[in-house]
Amino acid sequence: MSLRIGVVGTGMMGQFHVQRLASSVLDAQVVAVSDVNVEQAKRVGEQVGARAYSDGHELIGDDQVQAVLIASPGFTHEELTLACLAEDKPVLCEKPLAPTIDACLRVVAAEAAKPRRLVQVGFMRRYDDDFRALKATADAGRVGRPLLLHCRHRNASVPPGFTTDMMITDSVVHDIDVTRWLLGQEIVAATVLKARPSSLAPTGLEDPQMVLLETAGGVLVDVESFVTCQYGYDIRYELVGESGTVALGEQPGVQFRTEGRHQGSIPADFRERFAAAYRSELQEWVSGVLDGQVVGPSAWDGYATQAVAEAAVESQTTGGRVAVELVERPALYA
Amino acid sequence: MSLRIGVVGTGMMGQFHVQRLASSVLDAQVVAVSDVNVEQAKRVGEQVGARAYSDGHELIGDDQVQAVLIASPGFTHEELTLACLAEDKPVLCEKPLAPTIDACLRVVAAEAAKPRRLVQVGFMRRYDDDFRALKATADAGRVGRPLLLHCRHRNASVPPGFTTDMMITDSVVHDIDVTRWLLGQEIVAATVLKARPSSLAPTGLEDPQMVLLETAGGVLVDVESFVTCQYGYDIRYELVGESGTVALGEQPGVQFRTEGRHQGSIPADFRERFAAAYRSELQEWVSGVLDGQVVGPSAWDGYATQAVAEAAVESQTTGGRVAVELVERPALYA
Amino acid sequence: MSLRIGVVGTGMMGQFHVQRLASSVLDAQVVAVSDVNVEQAKRVGEQVGARAYSDGHELIGDDQVQAVLIASPGFTHEELTLACLAEDKPVLCEKPLAPTIDACLRVVAAEAAKPRRLVQVGFMRRYDDDFRALKATADAGRVGRPLLLHCRHRNASVPPGFTTDMMITDSVVHDIDVTRWLLGQEIVAATVLKARPSSLAPTGLEDPQMVLLETAGGVLVDVESFVTCQYGYDIRYELVGESGTVALGEQPGVQFRTEGRHQGSIPADFRERFAAAYRSELQEWVSGVLDGQVVGPSAWDGYATQAVAEAAVESQTTGGRVAVELVERPALYA
Amino acid sequence: MSLRIGVVGTGMMGQFHVQRLASSVLDAQVVAVSDVNVEQAKRVGEQVGARAYSDGHELIGDDQVQAVLIASPGFTHEELTLACLAEDKPVLCEKPLAPTIDACLRVVAAEAAKPRRLVQVGFMRRYDDDFRALKATADAGRVGRPLLLHCRHRNASVPPGFTTDMMITDSVVHDIDVTRWLLGQEIVAATVLKARPSSLAPTGLEDPQMVLLETAGGVLVDVESFVTCQYGYDIRYELVGESGTVALGEQPGVQFRTEGRHQGSIPADFRERFAAAYRSELQEWVSGVLDGQVVGPSAWDGYATQAVAEAAVESQTTGGRVAVELVERPALYA
Repeated sequence: MSLRIGVVGTGMMGQFHVQRLASSVLDAQVVAVSDVNVEQAKRVGEQVGARAYSDGHELIGDDQVQAVLIASPGFTHEELTLACLAEDKPVLCEKPLAPTIDACLRVVAAEAAKPRRLVQVGFMRRYDDDFRALKATADAGRVGRPLLLHCRHRNASVPPGFTTDMMITDSVVHDIDVTRWLLGQEIVAATVLKARPSSLAPTGLEDPQMVLLETAGGVLVDVESFVTCQYGYDIRYELVGESGTVALGEQPGVQFRTEGRHQGSIPADFRERFAAAYRSELQEWVSGVLDGQVVGPSAWDGYATQAVAEAAVESQTTGGRVAVELVERPALYA
Repeated sequence: MSLRIGVVGTGMMGQFHVQRLASSVLDAQVVAVSDVNVEQAKRVGEQVGARAYSDGHELIGDDQVQAVLIASPGFTHEELTLACLAEDKPVLCEKPLAPTIDACLRVVAAEAAKPRRLVQVGFMRRYDDDFRALKATADAGRVGRPLLLHCRHRNASVPPGFTTDMMITDSVVHDIDVTRWLLGQEIVAATVLKARPSSLAPTGLEDPQMVLLETAGGVLVDVESFVTCQYGYDIRYELVGESGTVALGEQPGVQFRTEGRHQGSIPADFRERFAAAYRSELQEWVSGVLDGQVVGPSAWDGYATQAVAEAAVESQTTGGRVAVELVERPALYA
Repeated sequence: MSLRIGVVGTGMMGQFHVQRLASSVLDAQVVAVSDVNVEQAKRVGEQVGARAYSDGHELIGDDQVQAVLIASPGFTHEELTLACLAEDKPVLCEKPLAPTIDACLRVVAAEAAKPRRLVQVGFMRRYDDDFRALKATADAGRVGRPLLLHCRHRNASVPPGFTTDMMITDSVVHDIDVTRWLLGQEIVAATVLKARPSSLAPTGLEDPQMVLLETAGGVLVDVESFVTCQYGYDIRYELVGESGTVALGEQPGVQFRTEGRHQGSIPADFRERFAAAYRSELQEWVSGVLDGQVVGPSAWDGYATQAVAEAAVESQTTGGRVAVELVERPALYA
Repeated sequence: MSLRIGVVGTGMMGQFHVQRLASSVLDAQVVAVSDVNVEQAKRVGEQVGARAYSDGHELIGDDQVQAVLIASPGFTHEELTLACLAEDKPVLCEKPLAPTIDACLRVVAAEAAKPRRLVQVGFMRRYDDDFRALKATADAGRVGRPLLLHCRHRNASVPPGFTTDMMITDSVVHDIDVTRWLLGQEIVAATVLKARPSSLAPTGLEDPQMVLLETAGGVLVDVESFVTCQYGYDIRYELVGESGTVALGEQPGVQFRTEGRHQGSIPADFRERFAAAYRSELQEWVSGVLDGQVVGPSAWDGYATQAVAEAAVESQTTGGRVAVELVERPALYA
């Protein structure tokens, strides 16, 4: 028995998910796709035998569609997710859950009124083997109580139109999510510091930055966000505990010795680095939905992350520390 | 559309394959299993909804079975593979193809009379990402023409009954296959040298050994075979070319700093190290068979590897260099 | 021809220097030592054939003493260094140059009135091979213009009496010096952030902390100061430039594979990690003095570092950003 | 008090030693140098204030010379070393002790008749920190009883005139010495295997080769000798014991991340890799001689190494295994 899935949005991420669902995920069947660019939707749909819509709401209303994956632009997420909730259909929504705290809270409120979770947010680092090993290590207390967390988040380059606040909302949101998930603590404040911008960054992009986060339990987190580092996609973490540290990010793969150097590759982008994590995210979502449960990153996670991201964006402008306050957590997310 | 597969042998490797086919391979369906221990076959079959046979020939003759995976003991491989060929059914046969050179040649002759390949042998290292990167590097000439190949092949321990010749036939066969595949050259001689046996090895097991292979192109290969190294499963390769070297085997995963040491894990066994390779092997076999082609390790590879293994086993006894001569390669394997 | 040196202070660091001067430095002869604990001074002096004083001023006035190394407590540095200047004797003063900005400025003023430099401060990381390679790399532009600098500064433990402000004045001063020297820029502001203290730190010690420095050229520097990290002495740097990064601190030495782990050692303390740097510092100072020149870290470096350290100590209390302003740099230090 | 040293031979190695003795070794004074090229001897001598001879015997006879370092061509070593013994002067003789087994035995016999050791041979790897750590580890039993030893010995290139047998006598002799010293066992047989020569090696040079050594205790040693590997000077060892392995050779120094690669340097040649070991060798020899004792690699080590080297050279021609038999060890070397 396969899960019949509809995918809203057939841009880069939408195609990436359709391709993975079709080629790598057991018990998944893409039966419908939609995009405002309906010609693109048709082309993508034909490859996997799915019907094409121009309107996401029609797709969500299609009786053949059992579950929905939302990969359309962020500003559409709230209404599409609410539509899925109205139909009682499980939905995997790419980050962000919604582009404002208030919009996130409306989704949370709608879902919290349901008897069980239906919404999962696309924080796929939780599905990466190394991140899972990091969390298992922290949870087992192998380095003692966590005190500090150092994060490097570097991209070789960004597409045209990438703005300074997107360094937070598109990139650091992953580190915000990892921090909350890894430490099991909410974030209570954010401060952003800027270096003199790289001359290789597009004009106007204030790159790189250091994002400092403080957790409820007193862990201090620093995230280097550098989206035009030129040399590759480089994700590294070091968790510092009371008795030791644990780190991820050393590069695997084959190693060369040539021309007076020992060397190895660094991934080109997130697709290369996190290919297996994206597959696991989809597989576990599909298997879970078929079993009647959604256990991945929740709408609450989407909201809490958004709240921290907004604080960090504010700090980008003001330069000061911005406190984060969350509403009370609904029982559904206990 | 799924490929309906029958699995012969429900021991450790058979169960491993059934579990993978059911949980990780797209378009694969296990419809039948067989084992002389029919109770075991029934238990394994029930988990995936497959019927159970006590006789592999009955399974092969079952009309519902489109393709066969053979995971029974080595001495049964020849007759079972020949039976698949008689039925024109694609077969993935665990190594060895057959336990003697003559038996291998009978399979090769039977398949060579067919219009297309039906037999694949279970040399799964070819499906590992690092080994593939190693080959891609060698093929691209990034380190120049190959001159030497150093291989480390270590197991923490062996099961009871493991004998000295099995160090070749069960373990080094993988390195023999990798050598032929990686370099694209046949092996023309083998010499085995023994260190004083480890006192931690079972009595009578002459462990470790160095296996020296010479290829038709003059590449010198040394394989350390150490099956009771105590500390873990450790596979490392270094290919030395005219202008540089390329190596695999540095350990990935999270890294610790505790108690005056930096440290990380070494895999416990081949299932941990090569889990992804086993999955890819099955997935590519299933997808290929559905497309009407078999492109993995061939019966010829099974035969050639067996010929080298027999030479190495002879050298274990005589201590001298043993030349390897192969029959002419049938056109099917050109 | 040897340089006849007097060493003021025969405590731990003083003995360490006397031993190195005697056993590893060419053209150096320790002819006098002094300590308020004159019995200790006598014991240390006897080992190298040096006379012993109870008063540093007497040692400085000794005609046999050509150059002075000051390893007595920090509060004595100002008057002893001024005494050396009054005698026109070259002096290598352990850090700090003096424990207050004003005291540092008095030394700077006294030396600036001389025709050539006589004072060197004991910032010995500048003599470490890896730090030199880091600077050579940065200067050569191999990673582009510097943007960020990440520093890890961890000690396994601290002696009794170690206080929170000493995390800056005793430990982070090295990172402050490296920052100024490596980047060739003054530091314009410091901010200190605290994690919840480690439960393994002595009561009252607020350990670990993150020290953020901003340079005149807009480079953002973060220093993790963790003086009770339990597991060893761990110094690591990563300089992030516009086109790449360069790092030091991977652990050399022999590497083990045992018990399911690959592992290697981390130095126990600064003496193990920086033994060669201490020797080079002394050797280059001795050779330079015999040549009539002092080119190592200057009194100005001692002052500028002290100014940053005081700002950081203030930030430890206030929690906010503290600007650093320096007096005009005298021509002698141009 | 300094040791007054005469250096015979002012070619590349002689100058290297004179420079080190003058600039880095305590209590050493070069008072005389000699070379058949007396103009060169004069130039080198002038730099350090040493008189120059054209004849090594005159230098050895000079009353001002207390100890002799021999860095002239190998064929002169026997008579020069015997001359030092006749004068009862300690001598540090660069490898080889002498170019034939018989010549080595004549030196051994002459020294064995003395009441104490006077001869040290220039096997300077024993003075390298990593090699010492390797031996300390093996001696402490941290990886269990030794079973195998893998050695990589690669040079980027060789000077004109370098012949195939010099791969043993000039290069692998170091690995022969390390094997004997590290394991504390004599070598009982040698076998040399050749790969097809690299096309980048000079015509006639059969490079690379694998040298297999067997020790009296049954340890199997393989040495890759590759003297035109192009990419750098690469020395790596892995000692395999019954319960684990210990390795040296991972590259230290700063590490880069640029252009999609992480990379670091490999030493250019032995001077870069072993600079500290050469210094320690000289320092410990000088200090020991001043104390009246010689404890470094002995004439016996020079002889035993030469015996293995000759066996390996014979195997280069015959292709077979050549047994090594040593004379009885004189009591002086017990």
